[in-house]
Amino acid sequence: MSPDDGDVNRPRRGRPVDHHIDAALVAAAHAVFAELGWRGTTVERVATRAGVSRASAYRRCESRYGLLMLMMGDIYERVPVADTGTLRGDLVALMEDVARVWRDPAHVRFLAAVVSAQHEDERLSQAYLTQFTQRRAATSVIVQRAAQRGELARPGQGDLLLDMLAGIVAQVVLLRRAPLAPDFAEQVVDALLNGFGTA
Amino acid sequence: MSPDDGDVNRPRRGRPVDHHIDAALVAAAHAVFAELGWRGTTVERVATRAGVSRASAYRRCESRYGLLMLMMGDIYERVPVADTGTLRGDLVALMEDVARVWRDPAHVRFLAAVVSAQHEDERLSQAYLTQFTQRRAATSVIVQRAAQRGELARPGQGDLLLDMLAGIVAQVVLLRRAPLAPDFAEQVVDALLNGFGTA
Repeated sequence: MSPDDGDVNRPRRGRPVDHHIDAALVAAAHAVFAELGWRGTTVERVATRAGVSRASAYRRCESRYGLLMLMMGDIYERVPVADTGTLRGDLVALMEDVARVWRDPAHVRFLAAVVSAQHEDERLSQAYLTQFTQRRAATSVIVQRAAQRGELARPGQGDLLLDMLAGIVAQVVLLRRAPLAPDFAEQVVDALLNGFGTA
Repeated sequence: MSPDDGDVNRPRRGRPVDHHIDAALVAAAHAVFAELGWRGTTVERVATRAGVSRASAYRRCESRYGLLMLMMGDIYERVPVADTGTLRGDLVALMEDVARVWRDPAHVRFLAAVVSAQHEDERLSQAYLTQFTQRRAATSVIVQRAAQRGELARPGQGDLLLDMLAGIVAQVVLLRRAPLAPDFAEQVVDALLNGFGTA
């Protein structure tokens, strides 16, 4: 440490306040979205609902696309990347948290709308896929560690495995609108690791 | 055969014409949908586009929900249920046809809109899930035959296997908006049958 970086250690008033603003904006954005859909979800409307000044809101997100990134980031934060020591343990922990998010009907409607809207709105798609790519980099650590431990039959297929796990949730909840069974996480992880065939 | 069922063998004028009407309505419905979205896809508009009388169109589908069922049924018809003699062969054939459908951007936009709309419109969801359930009954024959041949490690998981195959397509195309690799079908079927783990 040099004397020059003293500024870094001074209390920065902005930080903790910003975190509260983010949380208020995310909650308000979900509420506005549930009422008015994606087109009605404007930064101004969300700021008013959150009790946050427009200036503060626009500092955090300059458009509804920024709001979307805050909302997606918030969902991802609810699903921490576990480190249990085994691939099975990490994936079951991950999928239990994923299932918890997807059992919330408000989130399902939100994610269904985002999935559809990204095929009509390139900026929305970019925002969504940017968040997704960051998230995938974080979860990839699970399969990288597994590959190092020799737990993957084909180490190059870690990404396909993560896509399979994301895909089965989308298939059950978004496409089939079926509930996720209580043992969903263990069931899908074991099936994917062990395989469906007898060969 | 009794003399009474003679009527059955008389040429029935309605049938071949109906089939052409269905095909014209489906093509027109996709065209109208691509331009005007789900809300703009009315039976009257589709009938006009198809060059079919309103009376004929309403006889085939009394509402846009009936149109949706025609459109979904048409997509499913493009993916015949194979019978190659092995589970792997049947699933690879199935997934190659599925991938062909999902490589068409117009179908992707259509299916993305349907997936989203069914979370906001209960009648649409019923129409979609009715078609899906019929389709699943047809594809289930593949896993039932495999169970009889002893090709499934856990015969009770045939439905989960079919959901995994549907889910990976949804994940790659709808959620990640990524292209399906040329060897997509073989890659996912082999990974699912053999498993990702080393245990």
